[in-house]
Amino acid sequence: MSKVYISGIGQLPVREHWDYSLRELAARAVLLAMDDAQIESADALYVGNMLSGILTGQENLGTLIAEYTGLEGIEAIKVEAACASGAAALRQAFLTVSSGILETVVVVGVEKLTELSGFQTTAALATAADADYEAAMGLNFCAINALLMRRYMHEYKYNRADFAEFVVTAHRNAVHNPNAMFQFEITQEQYSKSKMIADPISLLDSSPIADGAAAVVITSNKKSIIPERTVSIACCEPGTDTIAVHNRNNPLWLKGVEKSTFKALKTAGVSHQDIDALEGHDAFSIMSALSLEAGGFAEKGQAVATANNGEFDLDGRLPISVFGGLKGRGHPVGATGIYQIVESAMQLRGEAPNELQLEDVKRIMTQNIGGSGSNVTTTILQKATF
Amino acid sequence: MSKVYISGIGQLPVREHWDYSLRELAARAVLLAMDDAQIESADALYVGNMLSGILTGQENLGTLIAEYTGLEGIEAIKVEAACASGAAALRQAFLTVSSGILETVVVVGVEKLTELSGFQTTAALATAADADYEAAMGLNFCAINALLMRRYMHEYKYNRADFAEFVVTAHRNAVHNPNAMFQFEITQEQYSKSKMIADPISLLDSSPIADGAAAVVITSNKKSIIPERTVSIACCEPGTDTIAVHNRNNPLWLKGVEKSTFKALKTAGVSHQDIDALEGHDAFSIMSALSLEAGGFAEKGQAVATANNGEFDLDGRLPISVFGGLKGRGHPVGATGIYQIVESAMQLRGEAPNELQLEDVKRIMTQNIGGSGSNVTTTILQKATF
Repeated sequence: MSKVYISGIGQLPVREHWDYSLRELAARAVLLAMDDAQIESADALYVGNMLSGILTGQENLGTLIAEYTGLEGIEAIKVEAACASGAAALRQAFLTVSSGILETVVVVGVEKLTELSGFQTTAALATAADADYEAAMGLNFCAINALLMRRYMHEYKYNRADFAEFVVTAHRNAVHNPNAMFQFEITQEQYSKSKMIADPISLLDSSPIADGAAAVVITSNKKSIIPERTVSIACCEPGTDTIAVHNRNNPLWLKGVEKSTFKALKTAGVSHQDIDALEGHDAFSIMSALSLEAGGFAEKGQAVATANNGEFDLDGRLPISVFGGLKGRGHPVGATGIYQIVESAMQLRGEAPNELQLEDVKRIMTQNIGGSGSNVTTTILQKATF
Repeated sequence: MSKVYISGIGQLPVREHWDYSLRELAARAVLLAMDDAQIESADALYVGNMLSGILTGQENLGTLIAEYTGLEGIEAIKVEAACASGAAALRQAFLTVSSGILETVVVVGVEKLTELSGFQTTAALATAADADYEAAMGLNFCAINALLMRRYMHEYKYNRADFAEFVVTAHRNAVHNPNAMFQFEITQEQYSKSKMIADPISLLDSSPIADGAAAVVITSNKKSIIPERTVSIACCEPGTDTIAVHNRNNPLWLKGVEKSTFKALKTAGVSHQDIDALEGHDAFSIMSALSLEAGGFAEKGQAVATANNGEFDLDGRLPISVFGGLKGRGHPVGATGIYQIVESAMQLRGEAPNELQLEDVKRIMTQNIGGSGSNVTTTILQKATF
């Protein structure tokens, strides 16, 4: 197996991008990453995207984006794994490059969610759930996460206010990320008074619908890389679970996250203590709690208490959502997994905004989760050694 | 690189499947293939599908189908490359297995196109074209292929009736394929009188909207295979072109097909003469002509004449559409590429229906084309040697 490096990164601010079409968003991110890597061609383009067909009437994204970025003729496909499409595309590219079959691959995550009404977008997002047995019953992801959060509160004796810490932390970090959608703090009090969406999920428990694109160049070619800008991919490991939550023995235990996380640690040959920061998938605050527990970063039923102890703050034991997470940076679905990678690469390159730059950071885990924990990819990035 | 074998195949008849949902179609094909390979688990499931989100409100297909087939927990993704999604999924699985990273992968192509009206399905299929510059102008694939066919007729001096041969041949073969949608012959006269859809494309130039699912088990594990049922994948090579036809220097020359075909021949170390049959992508009769020329199986402008010489008949130089092709077997978009593989494996295993079984067949090419030739994957299968 060849060692795989991230030799270039690019991202657009997460926003409502009324001025850029889907192809423009994607192409700009790709070209930024290729400029950063100082390359003009690649062997393939892998696109992570979930909803371009439903929301913008465009499939065949691989070909579209390859052409629009001047990469016409190269291998180009779209990979879909719900909200984890970005990292799933990275996983495929990682396999292809680590096997030595291709040398340099560009991976772009892109999503344009604000073309239609919020109602239509929420319905489109529900296609990540079981269409026949969840979505058809009116269960969108706010509702599914509300059921999980209510059960968690009952099981482990928490109040709604206890979850505020995840949201306050994410927004506090996002203030310093110029690419974040929400560059402002929110207080415990604002959280408590937040508009209810699906009890107990409030507006401020929910990551926002957003447009965005982020891209990375991955390569096994040591000669082509610029050492001080290069980060290693130690592993990129998948895990899945049932698509419908009601088919799980314990709905509060995300088996896909457990499988993906522990496999990633094993492949990278490291332990939980070796992970210096985690860019996780806080689509809803309950998803942070559940994934931290299944991944082994908090005891069962203790993630919320651990968060309230400050252990996931920037100066805590394991900083999470360093760049704002899905809640603060925004959640452009198929792009989110690549934003996590780009942000973590910046951190390891020492290029994070001053307020967010961690000291002595060697190794970062990113975790991209699709559906209600049904499709998960966990990646570990580390400083490159040559 | 490990040698890659097809150790199991499964397919459902191509039909309007009112009695099976999307997941049931896919699961039945997967279980048939796993039964055929005599395996009960696999390392991953790759799904080729284009339109499940738009037409059946279901994304996250990898997870859905893995769960429904008892493969819960394994790596599972969907690959999309328009009408070439099936073969694009196979290509990813082939890379993963040939690299030795995974050992056994199930690939399923599935599409359910008859849930909505023909109008809605035709609009959904147009998402494989350029949404902003083709589909938005009212160009669906009938219209795009009509422009290509009209230009071809003008350029190379053909009449509409000259194209009948592709259609007559496909239907003549489909009669003997129990999984074909149209098991009846059509005559030159019927073709000539066929209802016009988009002049000069008639109903009988067009492959039908259909439901279907087909699956293969691919593996590098020689110990697990049943030699007499096993076929080798010699190569699986991609090629792309601009998504919009108007961006091509010569709209009658499919550069993606040329690239994919010649790369496949080179990788397999064989020449055109070594290919004993071709399951090509006759979504429209003009697409047969253009792809045979770009792939080097007919001279420029001569594919139609060559067809009329009988060279693509069952007993001709290079039999095409042996199982009926997209025209006769049907075209369940994301499944089509896997139907081609299953049919060719049957041929090499000597399990084709008597009337369709070719003598001394050693090597078959399949070619799955997405969009207007914008995303192509060419695969060469051959008898396995041990």
